[in-house]
Amino acid sequence: MIKTKLTINQERLEKRMEALSKIGKLGETGVCRLALSSEYKEGIELARQWMEEAGLKTRTDNFGNLIGRLEGKNPGAPILMLGSHLDSQPTGGRFDGPIGVLGGLEVVETLQENGFEPDRPIEVMAFCDEEGYRFGIGLFGSRGINGQLQNDELERADAEGVTRREALKAFGADPDALQSSEYPAGSIGDYIEMHIEQGPVLEEKDEPVGIVTGISGPLWLTVELTGQGGHAGTVPMALRKDALVGASKVITGLREIVGQQPDAPTVGTVGSITVEPNARAIVPEKVTFSVDLRDIDLERRNRYEKQLRAYIEEVAEENQLEVRIEEDSKMNPEACSENILDVMREQSKVMGIPRITELTSGAFHDALPMAEHSEIAMLFVRSKDGISHDPREFSTYDDIAVATELMYRTTLKMMKKS
Amino acid sequence: MIKTKLTINQERLEKRMEALSKIGKLGETGVCRLALSSEYKEGIELARQWMEEAGLKTRTDNFGNLIGRLEGKNPGAPILMLGSHLDSQPTGGRFDGPIGVLGGLEVVETLQENGFEPDRPIEVMAFCDEEGYRFGIGLFGSRGINGQLQNDELERADAEGVTRREALKAFGADPDALQSSEYPAGSIGDYIEMHIEQGPVLEEKDEPVGIVTGISGPLWLTVELTGQGGHAGTVPMALRKDALVGASKVITGLREIVGQQPDAPTVGTVGSITVEPNARAIVPEKVTFSVDLRDIDLERRNRYEKQLRAYIEEVAEENQLEVRIEEDSKMNPEACSENILDVMREQSKVMGIPRITELTSGAFHDALPMAEHSEIAMLFVRSKDGISHDPREFSTYDDIAVATELMYRTTLKMMKKS
Repeated sequence: MIKTKLTINQERLEKRMEALSKIGKLGETGVCRLALSSEYKEGIELARQWMEEAGLKTRTDNFGNLIGRLEGKNPGAPILMLGSHLDSQPTGGRFDGPIGVLGGLEVVETLQENGFEPDRPIEVMAFCDEEGYRFGIGLFGSRGINGQLQNDELERADAEGVTRREALKAFGADPDALQSSEYPAGSIGDYIEMHIEQGPVLEEKDEPVGIVTGISGPLWLTVELTGQGGHAGTVPMALRKDALVGASKVITGLREIVGQQPDAPTVGTVGSITVEPNARAIVPEKVTFSVDLRDIDLERRNRYEKQLRAYIEEVAEENQLEVRIEEDSKMNPEACSENILDVMREQSKVMGIPRITELTSGAFHDALPMAEHSEIAMLFVRSKDGISHDPREFSTYDDIAVATELMYRTTLKMMKKS
Repeated sequence: MIKTKLTINQERLEKRMEALSKIGKLGETGVCRLALSSEYKEGIELARQWMEEAGLKTRTDNFGNLIGRLEGKNPGAPILMLGSHLDSQPTGGRFDGPIGVLGGLEVVETLQENGFEPDRPIEVMAFCDEEGYRFGIGLFGSRGINGQLQNDELERADAEGVTRREALKAFGADPDALQSSEYPAGSIGDYIEMHIEQGPVLEEKDEPVGIVTGISGPLWLTVELTGQGGHAGTVPMALRKDALVGASKVITGLREIVGQQPDAPTVGTVGSITVEPNARAIVPEKVTFSVDLRDIDLERRNRYEKQLRAYIEEVAEENQLEVRIEEDSKMNPEACSENILDVMREQSKVMGIPRITELTSGAFHDALPMAEHSEIAMLFVRSKDGISHDPREFSTYDDIAVATELMYRTTLKMMKKS
């Protein structure tokens, strides 16, 4: 139970969240607002209007990001940025992303209503394409402003064959001038992101909000095993090169590797698998599957990756399979700023939370690429049943309001400190 | 090396095989002649024309089978049937099926050219839909004439939504009068089928032809494991109910079960698997996979099935998964007729093969349902690289001619015996 009266305006935040959730509405509670789609553009324009009503100066950049800026007395001082994203998964929910953007706006609007004039500029950021569904690679806007894009990203196409370059143009951005939208290293001092937990920890502890000590870095591999097809009735077992038997050994092997330290937050998943020819009476010739390995401890993740690669080689040799492994993504885990965490710990006590829950994030967020040049922090809001990327995704506005209040108080303290 | 001069006409057989392979031709060497399609009809009509040129009386029945009959001096005596099928897989080869039908016709034509008048009727049979691709269940014509169809088979639809009933009507058969096309038990005395091996045994032994001692009975299961989805980054390993981890354990478990007697011909295959939602960053919620278990020894196959079912339950409990197992098909293995095998052994010696290779068939064939009411026998022709159900499927006409000659000599002996 939180004892303090809220400074932020829960009703306003709730109304905006509800209005935004109608754009790309899917069924009763779902949202489909794919990056750079017309629904995305509509969402961005609505958020821009609210930002301007709150007195922020707005712009969209060439990554498709929306930025609302409250000027500081010292315009050259390192920016304090509050944000998240407004794009969603194809069958996503209402909260994943928007609470961080509209919560950030709520913080800045409350600061102004209370007559606070910041020394440093504050920016509210809606990053473009955090989800990565449409073009198969996420965190686009946050990697973009930090100069972390790969070479060929503009040419990646969605399921309809539209490239990122074309989608950016249609949105009104200039994909040939991406560099002009990068932020120089050091220009953003701190980045704070409020997000739904997407996991079961806070619900289990019956806590509305938690603070994040670090974000797991995901390693994404695609493994392709090629053996030999053949008639399921006529090829003797001893002569088989069954790619699915090989893949199955790797899948159970991964489970064992990540389970070596049962108390560690390491997770390993094979979520997607394709078998060729995938026919009942034909021995599987080729199997392609994804590997997702995450850890907060980079040294351990690297050790497990090495073990996994060695095990794949062993299984391939045993089953006479050819192996191809592609590394699709490899991001380092990042620790959150102890300075900002200390402010959050202190302010949550003031709010009547004696000992706020501290947890790590297994999901990645825009905060992850932001960590390269800025101090980062995240607040998590309790998720019902830990569900996200699904219309059933749910957090209460009471919980969201508590987290927004904590973000407000943290921002205020950081402003005064600077 | 075969020393005897051939009685059968290899050139005629080869020409017919080549002409037939042009109907439904796929690329240079492939064939797509799906059961009851217009290509199938065209193939049947061509074969019918050859049968009539050879003096056979032809008819198509209500299962879509083509039958050419040479009357015997005693028309009521048990029929000697020679045959196989003319339908193919969607990307099939030229030999799987046709050699048994056109080889059977070659035998009957040669018998007549040599002035032989049989006591018993001889029928050349082209069974409809052995492959089972189009409606998901095979051996249609051979199960049909033996009264082995299941209740709902006429309502099964192909990928375009056309039911078997509609396809039979379009072909010109009457699906409401199937029973009139059944053969009374005992009316067919013997059934002989020449077929490509579809496996590596004869090639390894460098033998053109082998005789089959028994046909493995396939057990087909569909296993569905249901766990719980969730974010691959946020759901701790200990809380997971990962359906793909469960399926992987079953797949490797099946391999171990069928490998208990390394010299036995038992084979077990998971050829097809579907994962939901099949996304890189989502824990697999539901996995559906096929099981294909075959053995020549029914007692052993039953024992292994029991072990597999117990292991699936064990894995499901361990991983907190729900299990559903459907039995799609369960056919008993069948031994071939020792009487016909003896004739084949003797006649192959006469032809200069001192000790003909004897092998079992891991693939099922029309001979399998024929075994319920008739004595059955099969001849296998060497397959290049054991490949079938593929345009690369290949057997030489020299090898096919040797097997046809052996079938001719066997038929002649059996006629004289009866």
